[in-house]
Amino acid sequence: EQEDISTFRQEFLSFLPYDRMQFFAKQPKEVRLEIYNYLSPQEMAEVFQHLEQEDIPMYVDEMSPFFVADMLADMYADDAVDILNQLRKEQVASLLTIMDVQAAREIKELLYYEEHTAGSLMTTEFIAINENQTVRSAMYILKKEAPEAETIYYIYVTNRYKQLVGVVSLRDLIVSDDDTMISEIVNDRIVTVSVEEDQEDVARKMRHYDFLALPVVDYQHHLLGIITVDDVMDVMEEEASEDYSKLAAVSETERTDDNPFVAARKRLPWLIILLFLGMCSATLIGKFEATLEQVAILAVFIPLIAGMAGNTGTQALAVVVRSIATGEMDTEQKRKLVFREAGTGLITGAVCGVLVTGIVFVWHGHLFLGILVGISILTTLAIATLAGAVVPLLMHRFNIDPAVASGPFITTINDMISILVYFGLATAFMSYLI
Amino acid sequence: EQEDISTFRQEFLSFLPYDRMQFFAKQPKEVRLEIYNYLSPQEMAEVFQHLEQEDIPMYVDEMSPFFVADMLADMYADDAVDILNQLRKEQVASLLTIMDVQAAREIKELLYYEEHTAGSLMTTEFIAINENQTVRSAMYILKKEAPEAETIYYIYVTNRYKQLVGVVSLRDLIVSDDDTMISEIVNDRIVTVSVEEDQEDVARKMRHYDFLALPVVDYQHHLLGIITVDDVMDVMEEEASEDYSKLAAVSETERTDDNPFVAARKRLPWLIILLFLGMCSATLIGKFEATLEQVAILAVFIPLIAGMAGNTGTQALAVVVRSIATGEMDTEQKRKLVFREAGTGLITGAVCGVLVTGIVFVWHGHLFLGILVGISILTTLAIATLAGAVVPLLMHRFNIDPAVASGPFITTINDMISILVYFGLATAFMSYLI
Repeated sequence: EQEDISTFRQEFLSFLPYDRMQFFAKQPKEVRLEIYNYLSPQEMAEVFQHLEQEDIPMYVDEMSPFFVADMLADMYADDAVDILNQLRKEQVASLLTIMDVQAAREIKELLYYEEHTAGSLMTTEFIAINENQTVRSAMYILKKEAPEAETIYYIYVTNRYKQLVGVVSLRDLIVSDDDTMISEIVNDRIVTVSVEEDQEDVARKMRHYDFLALPVVDYQHHLLGIITVDDVMDVMEEEASEDYSKLAAVSETERTDDNPFVAARKRLPWLIILLFLGMCSATLIGKFEATLEQVAILAVFIPLIAGMAGNTGTQALAVVVRSIATGEMDTEQKRKLVFREAGTGLITGAVCGVLVTGIVFVWHGHLFLGILVGISILTTLAIATLAGAVVPLLMHRFNIDPAVASGPFITTINDMISILVYFGLATAFMSYLI
Repeated sequence: EQEDISTFRQEFLSFLPYDRMQFFAKQPKEVRLEIYNYLSPQEMAEVFQHLEQEDIPMYVDEMSPFFVADMLADMYADDAVDILNQLRKEQVASLLTIMDVQAAREIKELLYYEEHTAGSLMTTEFIAINENQTVRSAMYILKKEAPEAETIYYIYVTNRYKQLVGVVSLRDLIVSDDDTMISEIVNDRIVTVSVEEDQEDVARKMRHYDFLALPVVDYQHHLLGIITVDDVMDVMEEEASEDYSKLAAVSETERTDDNPFVAARKRLPWLIILLFLGMCSATLIGKFEATLEQVAILAVFIPLIAGMAGNTGTQALAVVVRSIATGEMDTEQKRKLVFREAGTGLITGAVCGVLVTGIVFVWHGHLFLGILVGISILTTLAIATLAGAVVPLLMHRFNIDPAVASGPFITTINDMISILVYFGLATAFMSYLI
């Protein structure tokens, strides 16, 4: 028994933390229950930092609460908060009660911040010094605090009110003489994030300015915590995955190991909404049944026209959503973008319209039908492109996440517009068609 | 004049590099031409490292080649390569000829690697030591090489054949005694990337293992360079943007400040392909003109059925493309995923089919029409979901980027499938419809 444990530990601990997690997550429950006995809370903490968020409640329920509390106390506070955010309220409260008091206090401070804000990403384990000291004494503090700090590569300089005044990188410390004053090498052009800032903005700042950590401050510029680059990479992945899923109208919580029933349950809400929107287009065509009965060939071009409207709408939507996501736009830029999309829609509509007129004429030998389909394509593409741009901009204006206006949603809306245009024109100029 | 320059320099250099780029990129050409005279090549290098890739050729053409060569020589080699990759072949050759010999040699080594591989991302400005020395002497080397190295936070340990044997973080050095041997603190569980590895895999490794830099090695494990986290963040942004654009069938090179003609030119290739695919669906419906003439009401449900097929196909596509992008899948997992999607398609198809049958019956009072539309929805959704999953998996199997199978593409394919199913069934059971 004892020998088994030591063999397991030797093998397991020779992996890197991420690989330990991979191994752990693949084990069946019986084996996991043994692993909890073989590892210390500190060792288990490293595994937990890399686990999939959704699986965490399951594992926590398998473990002794005291073990979990020790494990959380041993993590950086921001990682502990990530774990606690996955658990039930009562569970969080009871874990915090049995936890080491100091660790619980730090965690409670962070739990207070809303998800997806800078506050929820930051950790309080940073190194801060004041500027009236030498490089030598700063290095002394740094060595002392290194085991606790999440990064030792930036040292933040605060005044006596704990307000952030500058930053010194370890690089600066290393290349300076021991007797240099911190005030001589401190960098006071600091990029900070406000504690309530959205995580997407934090990620953008980190990526633009190429820092390894960003300090988080409140309105009075007090230093509250730091956000490290590893957490920002996770945010980038999360946000990209979210935008991508929304464009395709899939839930971002869907996982490839969900069974078909779970996957269907996650997709059906979207599909049912789209089904009802689709019934609206059907009703719309129903209004033109008389036209259809007289000129059945009109039906032939419905999917073409509706499809093209959907395609251009999705293109415009994607361009606009992406440009909202990657940078701030002022009103002037938004206005320009709308005009730009209107112009683009007219040009693509004209090109596709002329092409279609030609093809239909050659194929059916019916010039007027060709012109009708061509003009419908021109009109529809112009309107659909504009709609694809305006809808997300309006949503953004009213603080709704524009990515919610997914491709299928815009496509279905544009289906209806295209039907109205196509059958409207056909009915009006019926005499030329028969 | 002289005073103007010094005022400008003082103001400009008080910004952070990213903000200097922002300011620079907003200036008209006349002002830019003056700025080139006001700044040193080193200062201009910092601006260039943050510029949009597409704008680089324009700026380079405005500058003296000697200035550009000095500027490139002053950058980290990987950043210089990024710039050179945007320029014409003759331009690159002539810049390398007039450049500092040592810098040109380093750059030439990197230019050799293909774009989007680890080799093209890496820089050769890393710090490597051997393990038979003390922390003190390692720190001495580190201080000496710090001004040149892209990161000083990881020091790589190589043997006498220049093969990578381990890594020491600056954190480890700082907290160790000066007389400790490097061999005692070296970490030999190293995560490396191979020089030919795809940049997406590099980004995934960096994100999983939470390192600030990854060493790049060849097949004999020689240390060739390092990739730093700031470059990986740019890769993540680029790849996410690319996948998103492809899902919506837009070119990833499209920018919101393109004029309508440029934007239309970038979107038209996609739209014209989709137009021809749409003409195929039209031809397909044309084959059923006789059926349509007898039962005009059939046309009413075309957009609904085609639309739902497109929607489920896009959902399945997005789930599969994302899971290919975020992790490796073995054959067994792919097989499971296909069965999963088949099941999901059947379930969502059954639910939507029953719903539609009910609605059409209540609305039109025509039970058989309802059943026909319902069965078409069931069949179409099952096939469309499967197609949405199988197409990207097949593309991945044949080394085609699965993201190329964009939403609109899958949607148009699924349009055709749905028409075939719907009109096929309607024609077969015509007698019940009239």
